[in-house]
Amino acid sequence: MLRDLIVKNRSYRRFFQEQAVDIDTLRELVDLARLSPSAANLQPLKYILSCTPEKNALIFPHLAWAGYLKDWPGPCEGERPAAYIIILGDKRLSESFGCDYGITAQSILLGATEKGLGGCMIASVERDQLRKDLDVPSDYEILLVLALGKPKETVAIETVGPAGDIKYWRDSEGVHHVPKRPLDEIIIG
Amino acid sequence: MLRDLIVKNRSYRRFFQEQAVDIDTLRELVDLARLSPSAANLQPLKYILSCTPEKNALIFPHLAWAGYLKDWPGPCEGERPAAYIIILGDKRLSESFGCDYGITAQSILLGATEKGLGGCMIASVERDQLRKDLDVPSDYEILLVLALGKPKETVAIETVGPAGDIKYWRDSEGVHHVPKRPLDEIIIG
Repeated sequence: MLRDLIVKNRSYRRFFQEQAVDIDTLRELVDLARLSPSAANLQPLKYILSCTPEKNALIFPHLAWAGYLKDWPGPCEGERPAAYIIILGDKRLSESFGCDYGITAQSILLGATEKGLGGCMIASVERDQLRKDLDVPSDYEILLVLALGKPKETVAIETVGPAGDIKYWRDSEGVHHVPKRPLDEIIIG
Repeated sequence: MLRDLIVKNRSYRRFFQEQAVDIDTLRELVDLARLSPSAANLQPLKYILSCTPEKNALIFPHLAWAGYLKDWPGPCEGERPAAYIIILGDKRLSESFGCDYGITAQSILLGATEKGLGGCMIASVERDQLRKDLDVPSDYEILLVLALGKPKETVAIETVGPAGDIKYWRDSEGVHHVPKRPLDEIIIG
C-alpha cells in the first residue's frame, strides 16, 4: 500500500556504504521520474547517475548534511551513500523548473524505498564546486542531489509538541527523531 | 508495485463529476503529504479541501486547463472535478517553498490513483480571484491546485518523436496522447 511506502520513506543519512547500488537500479528509478508529471509536459529535467566509489567521491564533499545536528559533520567513511542521482534543469528547455524536481524526487525516493533502499533529498549543495568536479555544462542548473543506499539508521516519526519545534534530533542510541505537524494543523479549510 | 501506480497516474482533466469524493478521502491524501519529506523539516505547507458542489464552484472558474488544447476551454459541466486540494505555503513558517509542494503533490496524486481516482496538478491559477472567493488570508501563498475525481478519459503515454515535440494532443476519439522523452535522452551522465 502506498501509505506504507510513504511512511517507510524517511530521510536517511547513514548507509551500509559497502552495499553497492547498480546502474540498472538507478536507471529504473529515473524511469519512474520520467513517467511522472511535468508542468506543461516540458520535461526539462535531466539526470546524472553515480554508483562507483570514484564518482561518489567527487560528489560527497559538496553536500551539507542534517543542518540541525550541529555536532555531526555528516556520514563517516563506511556509512556514506552508495549512489547518487543528481537532478538538473535543462535551461534550453525551460526558464524555470517549478516543482517538477520535487515531483520526480518523490517518485525516485519511493521507488528506492520499495527496493529496500533509502536516501535523502539534498538541496544544500556547493553547486559551483560540484559543477566543476563533474564537468556539468552551464546549460544545466543543479537542482537537487539524491543520496541513496541501504539505510543504516532508525528514523522515528513523532508529533510536533506544543512549543512547535520541528527540528529533528538524534538520541543517545543514534535513533533519528523527526517531529511532524499534526493533520489538523495543516488542513486549514 | 509503485511503477504501475506511477504509470497509471496520468494527468486527467475530465471526470465523472457526479461520483463524489468524500472529505475523509481528502484527509487521508493530505496525511500522505504530511508524511512526505520537507526541506529542513520546516513543513510550511497548508491545505484547503473542497468536495461540495458549492465550494468546487468557487474554485473551478479560476483554473486554466490544458494549454496545448487551444480549442478546448476545459471540462464541461458534468465532467468537472469532484474535489480539490489546494496547496498553500505558509509565509510565516518559511520564506520560500522550494520543491516541497511538488513532493507532496506527487504523494497525493499517487494516493488518489491507488484509490481509483485521478487528477491534475494545476499551476495556472488566477490566484488573486481564487484568494478572494475562498477568503485565503494573505499569510498563505497559493502554490498549486490539485483537481481530483473519477477519470473519464483515456490517456496514452508515447515517446517523443525525432522533431522533439512534447505537446500533448487529443485524437478524434477523445484519447489524450502524451509524448514523453526517452530514458537515454534524460540521463546525461
